[in-house]
Amino acid sequence: MNQSRPAIHPIEAPPIPDPTPPGVAANNNNNQNLPWMKDVQGMPGTPGGLALRVLQFMFAVAALCVMVTTNDFTSVTAFCYLVAVVILQSFWSLSLAFVDVYALLVGRCLRNPRVVFLFTIGDGITSTLTFAAACASAGITVLIGNDIGNCAQNHCTKFETATAMTFLSWFAVSPSFLLNFWSLASR
Amino acid sequence: MNQSRPAIHPIEAPPIPDPTPPGVAANNNNNQNLPWMKDVQGMPGTPGGLALRVLQFMFAVAALCVMVTTNDFTSVTAFCYLVAVVILQSFWSLSLAFVDVYALLVGRCLRNPRVVFLFTIGDGITSTLTFAAACASAGITVLIGNDIGNCAQNHCTKFETATAMTFLSWFAVSPSFLLNFWSLASR
Repeated sequence: MNQSRPAIHPIEAPPIPDPTPPGVAANNNNNQNLPWMKDVQGMPGTPGGLALRVLQFMFAVAALCVMVTTNDFTSVTAFCYLVAVVILQSFWSLSLAFVDVYALLVGRCLRNPRVVFLFTIGDGITSTLTFAAACASAGITVLIGNDIGNCAQNHCTKFETATAMTFLSWFAVSPSFLLNFWSLASR
Repeated sequence: MNQSRPAIHPIEAPPIPDPTPPGVAANNNNNQNLPWMKDVQGMPGTPGGLALRVLQFMFAVAALCVMVTTNDFTSVTAFCYLVAVVILQSFWSLSLAFVDVYALLVGRCLRNPRVVFLFTIGDGITSTLTFAAACASAGITVLIGNDIGNCAQNHCTKFETATAMTFLSWFAVSPSFLLNFWSLASR
């Protein structure tokens, strides 16, 4: 009865100190816990993004190949411009395709704000230039084919095909640009 | 020497109690205090936005007036397309200019997500069409002026002026589109 018994007095564990003061926590939370939109297919580092880059590259190279097989494209400024632009577009898309392949292989996320900013600027410039080249070529192709009706002396079909390929390349660049821009804005 | 003197003991003011628990505060902060980007000049309902709309309208109407004064613009499909597009652009810009004037007069905010979505879609479509028309006309103007060198029979100066006005209209539409898109993404 009078033996001493061990008595357990539970004590609360001391709270783990918060490294950031309460006032700063709310702001940091906004940047660290809810920083960025979800991984939408088509954004850099996703299989959809890689597919878009490959499509951009393929259509740009197809436009280039078709246009350079016409021997008289150098006589029209717009067609020379188209050739220059699809070369730029193909190099840009190929570079980013390699980046996407690397990101997919090592499982790396490309959600860095600076990287996304760079991709957005690059996609914005190349998509604008590609669309401009496609529209200028389309205007001249319609002029030669319909308004003048001089397809006997010109490679109307090849010009049309190259223009269509450039438009398709632009169609593949636009989602990349819009998704990158959206991702940048919704940080 | 021994007189009693009043002694002042400053005490700290009690902290004002936080109505929300710390865990909830961070999440609510993200939705309630930082919901939408700030009122950037150029967005709908701001004086900058109204100025952009007026510029878009003025340049589109200028392009239309210059183009229709040439009596042979109907012989080129791209020039007819340009006329159609700048009519659409001027109507769209004028409508949104009226909306901006209304919003400014009654002090109403146009930050409604549906309204911004509608403006973004409209600006995206009209800016793409306007840019396409400008590029097609530019391609043909360069073809007539430089590649063929047939300015004696054509109104090269008027075609160039109309094209330049259309490009300027597009330059004024682009910030509206990008700001609306940014605003929509950063909700």
